[in-house]
Amino acid sequence: MPQSIIISLDAMGGDAGPEMVVPGAALALERRPDIRFVLYGDKARLEPLVAAHPALVNAAKIVHTDVVVRMDDKPSQALRQGRGKSSMWKAIDAVKTGEANVCVSAGNTGALMAMSKFCLRMMADIERPAIAAIWPTTRGESIVLDVGATVGADSDQLVSFAVMGAAMSRALFGIERPTVGLLNVGVEEIKGVEEVRTAARLLKEANLAELDYVGFVEGDDIGKGTVDVVVTEGFAGNIALKTAEGTAKQIAAYLRQAMSRTWLAKLGYILAKSAFDRLREKMDPRKVNGGVFLGLNGVVIKSHGGTDAEGFAAAIELGYEMVRNDLQSRIARGVSLYQRAGLDAELTAEQGEEQ
Amino acid sequence: MPQSIIISLDAMGGDAGPEMVVPGAALALERRPDIRFVLYGDKARLEPLVAAHPALVNAAKIVHTDVVVRMDDKPSQALRQGRGKSSMWKAIDAVKTGEANVCVSAGNTGALMAMSKFCLRMMADIERPAIAAIWPTTRGESIVLDVGATVGADSDQLVSFAVMGAAMSRALFGIERPTVGLLNVGVEEIKGVEEVRTAARLLKEANLAELDYVGFVEGDDIGKGTVDVVVTEGFAGNIALKTAEGTAKQIAAYLRQAMSRTWLAKLGYILAKSAFDRLREKMDPRKVNGGVFLGLNGVVIKSHGGTDAEGFAAAIELGYEMVRNDLQSRIARGVSLYQRAGLDAELTAEQGEEQ
Repeated sequence: MPQSIIISLDAMGGDAGPEMVVPGAALALERRPDIRFVLYGDKARLEPLVAAHPALVNAAKIVHTDVVVRMDDKPSQALRQGRGKSSMWKAIDAVKTGEANVCVSAGNTGALMAMSKFCLRMMADIERPAIAAIWPTTRGESIVLDVGATVGADSDQLVSFAVMGAAMSRALFGIERPTVGLLNVGVEEIKGVEEVRTAARLLKEANLAELDYVGFVEGDDIGKGTVDVVVTEGFAGNIALKTAEGTAKQIAAYLRQAMSRTWLAKLGYILAKSAFDRLREKMDPRKVNGGVFLGLNGVVIKSHGGTDAEGFAAAIELGYEMVRNDLQSRIARGVSLYQRAGLDAELTAEQGEEQ
Repeated sequence: MPQSIIISLDAMGGDAGPEMVVPGAALALERRPDIRFVLYGDKARLEPLVAAHPALVNAAKIVHTDVVVRMDDKPSQALRQGRGKSSMWKAIDAVKTGEANVCVSAGNTGALMAMSKFCLRMMADIERPAIAAIWPTTRGESIVLDVGATVGADSDQLVSFAVMGAAMSRALFGIERPTVGLLNVGVEEIKGVEEVRTAARLLKEANLAELDYVGFVEGDDIGKGTVDVVVTEGFAGNIALKTAEGTAKQIAAYLRQAMSRTWLAKLGYILAKSAFDRLREKMDPRKVNGGVFLGLNGVVIKSHGGTDAEGFAAAIELGYEMVRNDLQSRIARGVSLYQRAGLDAELTAEQGEEQ
C-alpha cells in the first residue's frame, strides 16, 4: 500500500462548521481509505461527531483549538486574533511543519489566503499566489486561474500563473502538455491590456516543453473548453467565476419555473426525470468544489463556505490528488524550466549581439 | 401620430449582410410602423431585397455606397479605408447630420466604435464611451456597462458610466430612480481596486436624485438582478458578458444531450415541449440583441454580427426606444446634475473650512 496522505482540516470553517466538515471527511475516507486526518477545532464538539463514523475514529486525530475565524472576519482581524491559535491557522501550520501534506478549509477566503501567505510564504521565484478553480466545460474540465488572489497581476505574474496552472493540469488530469490561453477581450482595437500582451510575448518566446501556449481566449471559450488552462488576473477571473455561477443558477430557476407551469410539463418532467437528474449532476457545483491556492510552500484547498458534506469531501479529494500527484514539485520544476528558457533566450540574444 | 423615428442602417454589416439586415428591418417595421429607414449599402443588392417587403418600400430609402467594412478589419484599417464612404461610416454620419435619429449596425464592434467616436465625438463632460448591454435576470432585465469600450476605466469614468446607465434604465424601463451597483470581487482583503473604491465614494457623496447607488455587487449578482444597473470597466465587463453567454450555451448543450439519451427522456421532452419552448425563449440571445454605445453625440446600436433577421429587428427596436424616450437628453441632464452635486459638495466643503 502506498504511503498515507495526511490532510489537516480546519474543522470549524464553513457556514455549517464541524457538522458539515466531519461527515465530509468520512465520505472522502470511504472513497480514499489511505487518507489520514488531523482535525483542528473544538474537541468537545468534534469527538461525538467523529465517533459517529467508526472508520473515521481510526483515521482521524483531533487537536483542540479555542479560537475560531469567523466567516465575516476581515483578513487583518483574522490574522491578529487567530494567528498561532485558531483552527484555521493550526491547520495551515500543520502543512508547514510537515505534520500534514495538505490543508483543507471552508473558512473565509480572505482570511485563509492571508494566513496561508503569512504562514507558508511564497515559493522561490513566485511573487504572488493564485487561486485555481476547476471549471466544467462541454469538453470536460479546465483550470482557470487566478479567480481572486491577485488583483491586477502583472505580466511576469501572469506567466507564473500559466506555469502553475499547467503543473496543476498535469497533476490533476495527467495532461502532458496542457494547452494554455490568456483571457482577453474580443474588441480588436483594445485587444490586450498591456500586461496580457506582454505575458503573451513572454510565453511565446519561452516556448516551454511543459505547456502549449495557444494565444488569447475570450469569456465564452472557458465553457467551451477551448484550452486546458485559462490564465487571467484575479479581478476578471473572480468576476468570470461568479458570473458563470450566477448564470447557471438563473437557468436552473428558469427551468424549474417552466417545468412546473402546466400539467403536461409536469408529466414530461416526471418521465424525463433521469435526464434531469443527469443534468443536475452535471451542473452540481459541489462536484467541482475547491479552489487550490498555488504558489505557496504548501498546498491549501479552499472549499465553498456554504457547501455540504458531499461538497467538502470533493474538496478533500482534490487536495488528496494534488499531493498524490506531486503538485508542488511539478510547479517548482515548471518555474525553473521557465527561468532556464529565459536565460537561454538572453544568452542567445547576447551571442547574437557579439557576432 | 407622433413624428417618425428615422433609423440609419449599415446594410452591409453582419455575417449575413443585406440578406439579414433587410428582412430584419421589415420585421421591426411591422411592430413599429412609425419607423423610417435609410439603408446604406450596395443598391443593386438592396433593391430587390427591399422590394420583397411592400411595407418597407414606402418606409425605406436606399443610399448607395461602394465600400464595405469587413468583419475582420482592424479599427484603424476600417477608418483608413472606410472613412467618408463605407456603409458603416455613412450610417453613423447620418446621425451626425441629423438625417437619422439613430444608427444600427451588425458590423464589427471595434470598427463601429472607432468610427462612431471619430464621427460623432464625445458628449460634453464625458471622457470615454461605454457599451451597455441588456442582461436578462431572474427579476427581469438589468443594464450592464461597460462591456468592452473602455478597458481600465478610471473612477471618474466609472461614475459617468453609472450616470449614463441610469439614464438608459429610465429611458428603456421607465425606472425613475434605478438602483446602481459597482461590480467588484468578493474577497475582503482585496475588495475594491482603487478605481472602484474611489468611484464608490464619489457616487455616495454625490447622492444623486436620479440614481440610487447601493454599493458593490459581485458577478453572481448580475443574473440575480440585484441592481438595475451594473457598472464596471470594459475588460471585466466584456469577460463577464462572454462568460455568461458561454455558460448559457454550455447548459443548453447539456440539456439537449440529457433529453436525447433515453426514450423516456425523449417522450418527456415531447410532453414538456411548450415548457422547453418557453425556456428557449427566455434564453434566446436574439431577444436582448443590441449593445448601446453611450457617451457619444448620437446613439449607435451594435447588433451581434451573427444574428438573424429576428435578432436584428430587436436591435432596431432597441434603437427606436432609445430615441423615443430621449436617451441623449436624459444622459446630458444626468451628467449636469452630477456636476452640480460635485460643485455643491465643494462649496459646502469650502464653507466648512471658512467657518
